[in-house]
Amino acid sequence: MLQVQGKGVHQCDSGWVPVFVDQDKSISLMSIGFLLEKPDDAVVWRGPKKNALIKQFISDVTWGELDFLIVDMPPGTSDEHISTVESLRPYKPLGAVLVTTPQAVSIGDVRRELTFCKKTGLQVIGIVENMSGFVCPHCLECTNLFSKGGGEELARHAGVPFLGCVPFDPQLTQSLEEGRDFIQEFPKSSAFPALTYIAQQILDRTSPQGS
Amino acid sequence: MLQVQGKGVHQCDSGWVPVFVDQDKSISLMSIGFLLEKPDDAVVWRGPKKNALIKQFISDVTWGELDFLIVDMPPGTSDEHISTVESLRPYKPLGAVLVTTPQAVSIGDVRRELTFCKKTGLQVIGIVENMSGFVCPHCLECTNLFSKGGGEELARHAGVPFLGCVPFDPQLTQSLEEGRDFIQEFPKSSAFPALTYIAQQILDRTSPQGS
Repeated sequence: MLQVQGKGVHQCDSGWVPVFVDQDKSISLMSIGFLLEKPDDAVVWRGPKKNALIKQFISDVTWGELDFLIVDMPPGTSDEHISTVESLRPYKPLGAVLVTTPQAVSIGDVRRELTFCKKTGLQVIGIVENMSGFVCPHCLECTNLFSKGGGEELARHAGVPFLGCVPFDPQLTQSLEEGRDFIQEFPKSSAFPALTYIAQQILDRTSPQGS
Repeated sequence: MLQVQGKGVHQCDSGWVPVFVDQDKSISLMSIGFLLEKPDDAVVWRGPKKNALIKQFISDVTWGELDFLIVDMPPGTSDEHISTVESLRPYKPLGAVLVTTPQAVSIGDVRRELTFCKKTGLQVIGIVENMSGFVCPHCLECTNLFSKGGGEELARHAGVPFLGCVPFDPQLTQSLEEGRDFIQEFPKSSAFPALTYIAQQILDRTSPQGS
């Protein structure tokens, strides 16, 4: 997605230098993918090795001054999640953004994720509903791929903010596939205002002044 | 999906009795969900506890005589996967069916899953491509939600069988949501022949006579 395949992580005196996505170094990135010899290598590791690497990614990378550190996590409530929350605790993380799709099996996962956040004392910034409706490019009629509104209902039920819905847009998936600039190529996509709105909601809810 | 929420697992002299989905007891089921007090409970467990439970699910459940034991796994190559493969080894498992969606990020996951199968000596029965195209119920035009054909290309590239594509059908997701009988309610859905074809492929490739 970010066109960084094959880039390497370098070592300097103060730690690992992350991979920079653009020349301005406005986005820096760290992933286990950069440490594998081949991109198809499977990381057949049990918990303790994964936990050690997660800790290293937080403490041994020369992140420098950051506006935001975003950790993209798989669903679940096990080693990766426990270790990430524990390693970040000294830095007082702003909280978790939980992403669901509208159908019940996914809502169930996120419901358990909410319980996890409560148990570990991690604040929930809010819930996002992804793949929320599909506008047919041929007839412009909207179809719900899954059921609709599950994310919003869950947020209301759990008493956490609902941050918004992202519609399913094949142009967006296509751009991500090919690492192209979605905003520049499809400025009229309905996914664009949806994503901007969600980003603004997150900024509003995490800025120190609350504005 | 199977309408078994709230059912409990009973203990008998020879072990745990699984949950039966229908009166004929043609499908029996075991899940950590049956062992939780509340369905929203998060199982905040590190690897060793998960590994122990996986072993118990295979050895301490009174499965009885089975045609097939199907283990539904999340993506990944860590504790759950290692423990499942290790626990099943004495029973000579038929192999793994790998399910992907067509886009590159998902294909990448399955490519690493293929490496995992190779490393652990698990045979690959084949690859299935899910969410493969969407037929608009309004205009009947087909749109690729993601890119198309990634699963088949991966299978060819890896030299493993390609078992087929399942189109995205909102009627199928709806039926799964509500635990209704999809085959009876939507016998004309294009997902139905697709799933039947894949099931037949798997039977053909795993039966002792190869027929």
